[in-house]
Amino acid sequence: MIVLFTDFGAAGPYLGQVKAAIHGVAPMETVIDLVADAPAFDPMASAYLLAALAPDFPHGTVFLTVVDPGVGGARRPAVAEIESRWYVGPDNGLLEPLLRRSDHGRWWEIVWQPKRLSSSFHGRDLFAPIAARLALQQFPWDKPHWREGPWAEPRPIEELRRRDWPDDLARIVYIDHFGNAMTGVRASTLSDDTVIEIAGRRLARAHTFGDVPVGHAFWYANANGLAEVSVNRGRADRTLGIEVGTPVAIEYARRDRVRG
Amino acid sequence: MIVLFTDFGAAGPYLGQVKAAIHGVAPMETVIDLVADAPAFDPMASAYLLAALAPDFPHGTVFLTVVDPGVGGARRPAVAEIESRWYVGPDNGLLEPLLRRSDHGRWWEIVWQPKRLSSSFHGRDLFAPIAARLALQQFPWDKPHWREGPWAEPRPIEELRRRDWPDDLARIVYIDHFGNAMTGVRASTLSDDTVIEIAGRRLARAHTFGDVPVGHAFWYANANGLAEVSVNRGRADRTLGIEVGTPVAIEYARRDRVRG
Amino acid sequence: MIVLFTDFGAAGPYLGQVKAAIHGVAPMETVIDLVADAPAFDPMASAYLLAALAPDFPHGTVFLTVVDPGVGGARRPAVAEIESRWYVGPDNGLLEPLLRRSDHGRWWEIVWQPKRLSSSFHGRDLFAPIAARLALQQFPWDKPHWREGPWAEPRPIEELRRRDWPDDLARIVYIDHFGNAMTGVRASTLSDDTVIEIAGRRLARAHTFGDVPVGHAFWYANANGLAEVSVNRGRADRTLGIEVGTPVAIEYARRDRVRG
Repeated sequence: MIVLFTDFGAAGPYLGQVKAAIHGVAPMETVIDLVADAPAFDPMASAYLLAALAPDFPHGTVFLTVVDPGVGGARRPAVAEIESRWYVGPDNGLLEPLLRRSDHGRWWEIVWQPKRLSSSFHGRDLFAPIAARLALQQFPWDKPHWREGPWAEPRPIEELRRRDWPDDLARIVYIDHFGNAMTGVRASTLSDDTVIEIAGRRLARAHTFGDVPVGHAFWYANANGLAEVSVNRGRADRTLGIEVGTPVAIEYARRDRVRG
Repeated sequence: MIVLFTDFGAAGPYLGQVKAAIHGVAPMETVIDLVADAPAFDPMASAYLLAALAPDFPHGTVFLTVVDPGVGGARRPAVAEIESRWYVGPDNGLLEPLLRRSDHGRWWEIVWQPKRLSSSFHGRDLFAPIAARLALQQFPWDKPHWREGPWAEPRPIEELRRRDWPDDLARIVYIDHFGNAMTGVRASTLSDDTVIEIAGRRLARAHTFGDVPVGHAFWYANANGLAEVSVNRGRADRTLGIEVGTPVAIEYARRDRVRG
Repeated sequence: MIVLFTDFGAAGPYLGQVKAAIHGVAPMETVIDLVADAPAFDPMASAYLLAALAPDFPHGTVFLTVVDPGVGGARRPAVAEIESRWYVGPDNGLLEPLLRRSDHGRWWEIVWQPKRLSSSFHGRDLFAPIAARLALQQFPWDKPHWREGPWAEPRPIEELRRRDWPDDLARIVYIDHFGNAMTGVRASTLSDDTVIEIAGRRLARAHTFGDVPVGHAFWYANANGLAEVSVNRGRADRTLGIEVGTPVAIEYARRDRVRG
């Protein structure tokens, strides 16, 4: 299974071109659109979203992860293996939260060059055929499958890391179709009495939507484990005036005070 | 074939997660995105849209129908069989127009509990694996395929009904990509000289777009049998200032007056 | 492989209905969404976008190309074969740039009538089953596969042409998810010192995004060979106030002046 995590947009034509490129190499492979509207030009926000979604997929899944504002520039094209899942995309921090939460990871710099390599669409020209090869169980350490020679070389994992990034990202990383705003903070790191401050509002935790009145803003642990800011049967983005990138402040409530 | 009818949004990540959950159970099954932008939080409008679309699919089709503002609350998870098609989703009226237009229907309450059941995403955790089982021809009345025991129990169909809902819904239930506004009223219930009133305008019927001048507003019987409000080569939603939920008034013209 | 190029919108229900119609005839066929947001009601802009995308697909690919403001009117339903790729859709100019850049092309008028032919959705009722037949290698010149008789008759290619259309279209034909604005002009027809004028701005060429400062507007040869107007890490559409249809002026720079 190949899973697409990109900022390409759902309506086209980039996703379709990527799928056609995969189909040319691995025509029988299932391709799933996971996210087509990752935060554009924002590998950091995208990284914390990806880290919440990817571990739910089976071992062996190949992710095409392309949020790539530096395409055509100096960032390196990467293949990484983390917790038995594969990731193909630019080396720009997208994998940092996954690496940080894993005991180990390996990566290879892609040295293969396709016959056509546009300056602006490595997702189609470079990453898609590599992802397809991985899905076909052709790995970087195998003997080369392409006549051009070896297609990737092993590198120290430290090179892929962004040690200065936080464990969790205290800002909005995704607004969904309903206007719910996901933070980059794992709910498991927060207590039930944690208050989230955003856009001048202080929000208490609820278990789920039905636990608060219609129109009420709250935060909760979403189905992917992130702290999410929502309004019951409303749009949190418009109600609160927030967007991808809006910072949140985590207020770890003092129990004595909260309990009075 | 599994058909997705949801308000999840097309760009991600919810549809992709549902597809991955289906793929984990029924990897060879064809999955078709039918509607990803059903009226959010509005099972009633969604129900009349669904009833216009579903009967066109082959017998045996499994629909995942999730417009579920009450997720995590008291509504029951349901499997229903209506006119040899299967529907999996919350019991919140989504199937009422289909049941009303059918001679018979059966339903089962899903009692199976997955190992992981989030409070906000039953589409992925509960309904997707059930839909996949149905596509694999594993039915509620079969001996249990899961070790946990029986996965659904038969219930009287009356429990699923919403007897107080209308036969047709006289409001806008969907705005398409072009700005055309579908009502929840079957065109077959209207005569050629019916006038539809909406947003202070009185619209006559036309056969199709080309029959009226560019920029002209009209209604017609759309390709799914619903009365639809449109503007030739324009956007009815913006031109008329209408949205999902806008009421329409059906004015059944008196023939003697119209002819006279 | 069947490739969908339409103005139907990604979220539904039209694309899903087309896919279901294809699945009914050719259930094993791979279907790829290429463009779901082609310029609505604008076959001319769509045609120059299609011509940039289609030649990248393998021979034998079947394109369903439906941008069809005249549906239900007098335009003819067409099957065409150009450079070993198949196109199914309305005869309204969509194929003109492809024909102009090819040595040869053939077309057939679809005379087959499905049992159900709605007045507004020939994509589902007429073109999808034909595209599926082509993907199954059933061609217009074969003995009829449908009991209704022959499904297409050969016509002189000249009838499909739009001789008065330009070689390249000097206006915006597509705005992508990032706000980049594709023109209908092939970059290969322009020199490095060509200036593109749009919305009162004069834009120089760059190789790629990283070559200009953040927020800077420029044009470049995009990954599909079109001249594209962009802003590094910004949205060209909003920054420049442009949309699909905005005209561009190509200023072929005099070398002595530019260099002087």
